[in-house]
Amino acid sequence: MTKIYKGMKPTRRSFLTGAAASGVAMVSAKAANAEGDPAIINKQEWNQYLGEGVDARPYGMPSQFESHVRRQDVPWLTADPVSSVNFTPLHELDGIITPNGLCFERHHAGIAEVDPAEHRLMINGLVDRPLVFTMEDLMRFPRENHVYFLECAANTGMEWAGAQLNGCQFTHGMIHNVMYTGVPLRLLLQEAGVKTTGKWIMPEGADASGMTRSIPIEKALDDCLVAFKMNGEALRPEQGYPVRLVVPGWEGNMWIKWLRRIEVGDQPWHHREETSKYTDLLADGQARRFTWEMDAKSVITSPSPQAPITQGPGPLVITGVAWSGRGTIPRVDVTIDGGITWQQARMSGPSLNKSMHRFYLDVEWDGKPMLLQSRAHDSTGYVQPTKEQLRHVRGENSIYHNNSIQTWAVNEKGEAENVEIS
Amino acid sequence: MTKIYKGMKPTRRSFLTGAAASGVAMVSAKAANAEGDPAIINKQEWNQYLGEGVDARPYGMPSQFESHVRRQDVPWLTADPVSSVNFTPLHELDGIITPNGLCFERHHAGIAEVDPAEHRLMINGLVDRPLVFTMEDLMRFPRENHVYFLECAANTGMEWAGAQLNGCQFTHGMIHNVMYTGVPLRLLLQEAGVKTTGKWIMPEGADASGMTRSIPIEKALDDCLVAFKMNGEALRPEQGYPVRLVVPGWEGNMWIKWLRRIEVGDQPWHHREETSKYTDLLADGQARRFTWEMDAKSVITSPSPQAPITQGPGPLVITGVAWSGRGTIPRVDVTIDGGITWQQARMSGPSLNKSMHRFYLDVEWDGKPMLLQSRAHDSTGYVQPTKEQLRHVRGENSIYHNNSIQTWAVNEKGEAENVEIS
Repeated sequence: MTKIYKGMKPTRRSFLTGAAASGVAMVSAKAANAEGDPAIINKQEWNQYLGEGVDARPYGMPSQFESHVRRQDVPWLTADPVSSVNFTPLHELDGIITPNGLCFERHHAGIAEVDPAEHRLMINGLVDRPLVFTMEDLMRFPRENHVYFLECAANTGMEWAGAQLNGCQFTHGMIHNVMYTGVPLRLLLQEAGVKTTGKWIMPEGADASGMTRSIPIEKALDDCLVAFKMNGEALRPEQGYPVRLVVPGWEGNMWIKWLRRIEVGDQPWHHREETSKYTDLLADGQARRFTWEMDAKSVITSPSPQAPITQGPGPLVITGVAWSGRGTIPRVDVTIDGGITWQQARMSGPSLNKSMHRFYLDVEWDGKPMLLQSRAHDSTGYVQPTKEQLRHVRGENSIYHNNSIQTWAVNEKGEAENVEIS
Repeated sequence: MTKIYKGMKPTRRSFLTGAAASGVAMVSAKAANAEGDPAIINKQEWNQYLGEGVDARPYGMPSQFESHVRRQDVPWLTADPVSSVNFTPLHELDGIITPNGLCFERHHAGIAEVDPAEHRLMINGLVDRPLVFTMEDLMRFPRENHVYFLECAANTGMEWAGAQLNGCQFTHGMIHNVMYTGVPLRLLLQEAGVKTTGKWIMPEGADASGMTRSIPIEKALDDCLVAFKMNGEALRPEQGYPVRLVVPGWEGNMWIKWLRRIEVGDQPWHHREETSKYTDLLADGQARRFTWEMDAKSVITSPSPQAPITQGPGPLVITGVAWSGRGTIPRVDVTIDGGITWQQARMSGPSLNKSMHRFYLDVEWDGKPMLLQSRAHDSTGYVQPTKEQLRHVRGENSIYHNNSIQTWAVNEKGEAENVEIS
């Protein structure tokens, strides 16, 4: 039943010459018919041998051809990799789920290797009944599942001063988006009995940095989770195994990893990580504090500096991600001319509260330079600002909470560069 | 601000003795206060050292304490592991996403290691323009993201003849649930131009088994995807890297991996995998065929034979998964007495079309034996049948499409066993 066409081995160019103008007519039928040799598909090496069996990979890993898809650190950024960050390769991903092995890491004393049988979680302070939980104890409480983004407050922070890092992995890769399974923190606090004077909590990590942050009791009783699974399986060590705090929509530093203690108090603690760090220094020398919610933001992941256009003019999928700490993303606009004209992108995938969203704009690229930007609208009506608008309000001293519009300049060759336009 | 309590190191028993009767009052405050020594949390080994830095794990792996969470094959099941199956450890997972490393495998000639630069996808047969696509060509078509379950038609097949395999990993583990990113097959077929005589497609795999199946053109033009990502990253080699067919809601064997060719024809091909295999032999010797849709099904994943109750009486989370090839799962019922009384379970997590759903029933276990079952209702109104009901219609010769209710018998010690009740 199979017809066989004689001809040369097809090449990329032969199939794309003559691509039609419509959105989907992107493979030249003439070229395929004339030059495509279907016999090629029966001559592939992997058609000739038996591969590894079902006993070979009890826990699977990506293909050898995907070894370039990796978290990447920037050695010059900090003095030591135990207190530093690496970045999610956003330019290589699609959809909205970040695979666990590629979720960016941020440590203050390296990765604690915690034995879950020995780990304990204490609740103390202004409570009726101080409690210590084993992991097995936590497994007896009702659980919930939610997909949430986790974004470091410093994500895109280097860009305040101008276009610096060349690639969305580095400008926007301090974010990941996974499904968490955990116990609502509310249930554990109710078990301990928060006194009427208890207005704040201070979660604390079990690693050598003993990370602490202050969180208002309203948030703690709202949607915080004490989570032990991500994307179905146990948390990864670098994400706080065996248990971390999930603080939906709020800056990542508050999502305490290796969670060992939650103290209830009557006021914030003003520890280092909420005074000298994770506050926003304004132009007048004053610092904004308690800026926990992550504002609506988006970035185009492809094309981008690490994901250039390799096929020349013709049909092009422009894609990216958008998120908001305040809700969902009903709409993203994309411009290819630096903001002169905007087109509404197509969203694809579930639209979930405080989760990443994926957008696409399917265009016909004419081979001319482009200035690519995306602009997220969240469910509160908030619209992602330009860098100029953000600087106007917050000055240029800030590091944290840069949610401004990102620009990629694409040249005739399809190469993209991080630029700033005004 | 932290109060320090003097006492012994807490043990599991000390915290659970005296657990209250309410759903969430499950940790004895008295025990915690009297015996819990909060100082333990400052004496943990991992609090004393700096861990690995952000340069250590470009692609992360699970904790050393999770090495028991693995795909598991059953050596006696087939003659050779290159043509066999392994099973998703459902009893260790939660939520609805299956991590890529734990998605069950089914191969017919082992894992093909395909170079994406050399791979081609051909569309031929009853089309106006036979086409050959490179991977880069596929990247130019509009993409979509969907979470779908993939279930092998033989999942639970060994149980037709009675309770045989002791653990939901083995009875129900030929299923996984991930987010796919891919091009609607419809767009590729439109590009090739299906002739009016084209009523069926035959996708073909590039591995040494050259797997083929017949699929009606209506399904091909409806929701099938030519997918290249799972859970955000490239497909895994054992799941068809670099490209597989996604046939939502239909049996897994049709989801051709390492997809290299799609032929369009005017009738089904009746190949081996749709005649001697993947048909259902009835009691009268006739075989049901074209039974592609996976009926609504559910299973309790914990407690279960591989996930016994280890903490004795008190609050207990009963949890499991449910799915239907025909839509969503608005409701799951759970019984602890073998079907005498049923309680409606709590669903948690997004309810997506043709995706796994997660359910929970939070109970107070009195320490007496239980007969646990779950029963899924799908969005068409269909209710998961008992094994007796299914046998009444289909006899006892079948292997495939066993979607009947599963029973676990739990004894006083909390140990669970696969049993059959009638």
